[in-house]
Amino acid sequence: MMRKLKITEMGRMNTEEFKASEKMPLTVVLDDVRSMYNVGSVFRTADAFRVEAIYLCGITACPPHPEIHKTALGAEDTVEWRHFGSTMEAVDELRAKGHVVFSIEQCEGSTMLQHLDLHDCDAMPALVDATGFAIVMGNEVKGVKQEVVNASDACIEIPQYGTKHSLNVSTTAGIVIWEFARQLLIK
Amino acid sequence: MMRKLKITEMGRMNTEEFKASEKMPLTVVLDDVRSMYNVGSVFRTADAFRVEAIYLCGITACPPHPEIHKTALGAEDTVEWRHFGSTMEAVDELRAKGHVVFSIEQCEGSTMLQHLDLHDCDAMPALVDATGFAIVMGNEVKGVKQEVVNASDACIEIPQYGTKHSLNVSTTAGIVIWEFARQLLIK
Repeated sequence: MMRKLKITEMGRMNTEEFKASEKMPLTVVLDDVRSMYNVGSVFRTADAFRVEAIYLCGITACPPHPEIHKTALGAEDTVEWRHFGSTMEAVDELRAKGHVVFSIEQCEGSTMLQHLDLHDCDAMPALVDATGFAIVMGNEVKGVKQEVVNASDACIEIPQYGTKHSLNVSTTAGIVIWEFARQLLIK
Repeated sequence: MMRKLKITEMGRMNTEEFKASEKMPLTVVLDDVRSMYNVGSVFRTADAFRVEAIYLCGITACPPHPEIHKTALGAEDTVEWRHFGSTMEAVDELRAKGHVVFSIEQCEGSTMLQHLDLHDCDAMPALVDATGFAIVMGNEVKGVKQEVVNASDACIEIPQYGTKHSLNVSTTAGIVIWEFARQLLIK
């Protein structure tokens, strides 16, 4: 008998405890994400893995908004966020403060997600002095802009074996944030 | 310069090639999933990782449906699926044919996802003769039914460090299917 836990047995933090807690050194950047469902879902995942901040760029909608709330379910009140007029501004600021920036894209020379090793400084010298990490997720149709890809330290690609050309933005965020959490957060 | 790949450079299969291809030995079971957005999104992820089949149980909606198509984007025509009146029927059939069934739930004694090792038969003797695997994802509010949990071989839990009590169904499916793909599909 594997008894399901009650909500009170899950030992979750309240909002104040969350705000004061140590975060995973990862910022999630949304580059012109169109769907508020995706924005809300990224907030909910970012709460679960204590992401440092979400940077909402360009046309990406910001809280408070009922459509974002529908999938964020309150996580838009716990996770830090900022809005930037353009994704390039956000990436420039992140790199200026020493964060290593990864675009999540299918590019020539992408690192396949299963090969990502955030502790392998030989493979990626930028990791030596990294003050943190950022991942950029692109628009539902156009992906990450080529200029943003060019301004990134590297691209990470989720290998795909089917007929479709990409995964949903919120699914992609879940898979990639999980990989960062496995390497940075989970003891 | 990390050039983004064109769609024609991604080398994806067409539907006929997908149907004929070898699948990952994983069936995804949806236990009374309410949102057609979630159903469609699971189809899209299942296409990307060549999941064997999706079993849509109870109130879970089936294709063809415009709301499922919105997030599946055609993956509902590539991935095999069946409908079952109840999730217990689906689980009983899967176990009868030798599949190891995991409920994705927060339970007493759950296996944390980062500790899942599908090749560690010492930790889990049921793996020795496994003909395949199945994961059960529950209703958005109620999770996997306790009777379905009881009929499973084990529970897998995604560790969560924030304020919310669960992740979105389509995000959960993405993270868990990715972990199975890392262990079963990706060379």
